[in-house]
Amino acid sequence: MQNSSNRAVILLSGGLDSATCLAIAKSQGFVPYAISFRYGQRHRIELERAASVARHLGAADHIIIDIDLAKLGGSALTDRNIAVPKHQSVDQIGSEIPLTYVPARNTVFLSYALAWAEVLESKDIFIGVNALDYSGYPDCRPEYISAFARMANLATKRGVEGNQLTIHAPLIQLTKAQIIERGLGLGVDYGLTISCYDPAEDGTPCGRCDSCLLRAKGFSELGSIDPALK
Amino acid sequence: MQNSSNRAVILLSGGLDSATCLAIAKSQGFVPYAISFRYGQRHRIELERAASVARHLGAADHIIIDIDLAKLGGSALTDRNIAVPKHQSVDQIGSEIPLTYVPARNTVFLSYALAWAEVLESKDIFIGVNALDYSGYPDCRPEYISAFARMANLATKRGVEGNQLTIHAPLIQLTKAQIIERGLGLGVDYGLTISCYDPAEDGTPCGRCDSCLLRAKGFSELGSIDPALK
Repeated sequence: MQNSSNRAVILLSGGLDSATCLAIAKSQGFVPYAISFRYGQRHRIELERAASVARHLGAADHIIIDIDLAKLGGSALTDRNIAVPKHQSVDQIGSEIPLTYVPARNTVFLSYALAWAEVLESKDIFIGVNALDYSGYPDCRPEYISAFARMANLATKRGVEGNQLTIHAPLIQLTKAQIIERGLGLGVDYGLTISCYDPAEDGTPCGRCDSCLLRAKGFSELGSIDPALK
Repeated sequence: MQNSSNRAVILLSGGLDSATCLAIAKSQGFVPYAISFRYGQRHRIELERAASVARHLGAADHIIIDIDLAKLGGSALTDRNIAVPKHQSVDQIGSEIPLTYVPARNTVFLSYALAWAEVLESKDIFIGVNALDYSGYPDCRPEYISAFARMANLATKRGVEGNQLTIHAPLIQLTKAQIIERGLGLGVDYGLTISCYDPAEDGTPCGRCDSCLLRAKGFSELGSIDPALK
């Protein structure tokens, strides 16, 4: 029987990174509880993919939380009046914070994960952030993750009782190619995942947004073919 | 004309503490932007009161965010299957974490406030937490507020750019009587506010939940009459 001590809450987006993250949590003996967010993003298909990935990788539960980031505005990913930036190659991706940054997104997501973890009596949260390929996002850095964990341990009953919560970010120092290699080794079907910021209605990736370019570079470095493009 | 440098985001619940907090922010020269949350609580009347307080105290804007804490369960304030604890006097309020604790609530609320602050280009957030009268809640402690601020400054563009965000908790070391005295001095009409965890349909407070008892004690210590009971 399952007990609460090996439950882990996994932030699951439907993308490549979080699918890998779920597989890693499972390989480490955790019973994964997946949480996704509907936040006014352009592509509802992400959530269908998240549900497929959760089934494929055997999550014990998968919940989708509606959140109101769109009401606050301020990002190309939630505000239809701001265009998603397109490039011809990864070399054109700037080092500045991109327009696709969503204000405080990971903080909002991790806060919900923290609430669910407390209810589930779980002391482990997994998030698929990556500091190398997405260095423009402030809330993907290791120092941010550490500060969230410290805050979380002061925020909750669990922390008060000295039963420490851990935020796992197993991809944080991996390249995209290393992430894909790890996931393939764990049997992740990347054909189920979607990374594009601006896909067609049927889920076909645009091939030119930052996320598509970084994903293509990862598969290319491995000498592998992206099953989502087959 | 307003500029963004003196905008402040204020967490506003419709209760006595957050109304006082809004009045304090205004008295310090901030332009208040009030944010409230609909989170499956039993008493929708809280949100009507929050809107009244925002108008009464001249908030520049007031938004209500729908959040899904109820889906996660785990608290008497969001789960109808758990009864709100009732007592005859404040002496019966225990020192343990109460059943009315909502998992990670202030963390979720502050995360949304952080997102809005970033969009508004505000660097100040006010929260009416109080460590004395509510010592059972872990996320009302000064060390929690400090840890959230530290995390927030690592999470956002503003923090990356070195433009520090401050979480103001001006009530944190005040007794309920001191909070009321401060608010009365700033012209807060406490008749608009509601503190009860379990009011009647028309907003009449139950008089016996922890929140009602603490509020009554505050007015009593001041030798003042609660205008909400007139």
